[in-house]
Amino acid sequence: MKISELARSADVSIPTIKFYLRQGLVAPGRALSATRAEYDESHLERIRLIRALVDGAGLSIAAVSTITLALDHPPPSRHELYGIAQRTIPALHGGHPVDDTVRELVAALGWDVDDDAPALHALSGALDAAGSAGIHPSPEALERYARASRHVAEVDVDLVGGAPSAGEALTTVVVGTVMLDPVLSALRRLAQEDVSARTPER
Amino acid sequence: MKISELARSADVSIPTIKFYLRQGLVAPGRALSATRAEYDESHLERIRLIRALVDGAGLSIAAVSTITLALDHPPPSRHELYGIAQRTIPALHGGHPVDDTVRELVAALGWDVDDDAPALHALSGALDAAGSAGIHPSPEALERYARASRHVAEVDVDLVGGAPSAGEALTTVVVGTVMLDPVLSALRRLAQEDVSARTPER
Repeated sequence: MKISELARSADVSIPTIKFYLRQGLVAPGRALSATRAEYDESHLERIRLIRALVDGAGLSIAAVSTITLALDHPPPSRHELYGIAQRTIPALHGGHPVDDTVRELVAALGWDVDDDAPALHALSGALDAAGSAGIHPSPEALERYARASRHVAEVDVDLVGGAPSAGEALTTVVVGTVMLDPVLSALRRLAQEDVSARTPER
Repeated sequence: MKISELARSADVSIPTIKFYLRQGLVAPGRALSATRAEYDESHLERIRLIRALVDGAGLSIAAVSTITLALDHPPPSRHELYGIAQRTIPALHGGHPVDDTVRELVAALGWDVDDDAPALHALSGALDAAGSAGIHPSPEALERYARASRHVAEVDVDLVGGAPSAGEALTTVVVGTVMLDPVLSALRRLAQEDVSARTPER
């Protein structure tokens, strides 16, 4: 299809597509002449992914660029899939030092995670930020949050198990993790309403 | 304390504090003269909260303003606490129509939630966005995510149970929900690593 058809199908403007092409977020089309190129379903799919990451998950173009770069260079095997995904997915507090509270939590849970996993930094920074906002969950509350999060992760890993190749598995981990965070936030808010409706007022 | 001391204690600039005062995010100090005012711990606490919401949870000043406005006008009782919180906390996809999938999920779970709860719209929009990015969790996967989220919500509601007044309960619900979303995201990523390390490759 021509770039005008691509724009119409993806519901974005032609200048937007040209911007994505210049930034390397979308692969060039097959050149038909010096000024015309042919695009296919893979281009349409990529543009839809970019729009979903930007509009649906609120990511910046820089964050999307890190993701598409990783997806364009998938790992040869599934080994370290979640390690690569963690380094690909944008996180607040990436440079925050890992707190003792977080080390103790992981030890108490007996979780098998890398000593320098980006999520350890993100967790420390997020807890620190919650603390400055006056929210201090106890170690017991944190352990309960962690066990609930592990149930979420079990579903995540099952979803990825069905992917036929390491490249598709990476796409599912990265895109699924990013796109389902807002789904989980919304489910948490609905569940709060239900739990609260069934809890007698104190 | 003077505005200069407030700025130093909160680690923000004086122009930033003046901006918060103009926007109504921070209450005026006690006037000492036409140009000088006295600030106290409550002002310091509020500025720390604003910084945590902006830097720690990535909220916009407009979203923070909605939150501080609600916190400054707490409800007389805890009735409808989560309803107020849901309308206060910024959510993507607020205007998205509620999908049948979402109605069916809530019915299958038997959850007691308002027919027009903002989180129903947010959930529909987030699932729609995930779908355009190629992520389609099955109804079974969604139910598992929902049950895990309910465990999270049980901890949330327990944290709020300890708040002495409706105002403090609202602060805990709103600030706790917003500030702990990044904590839960980080826990999910760590848990993925652990679950994956213990799952044989398929």
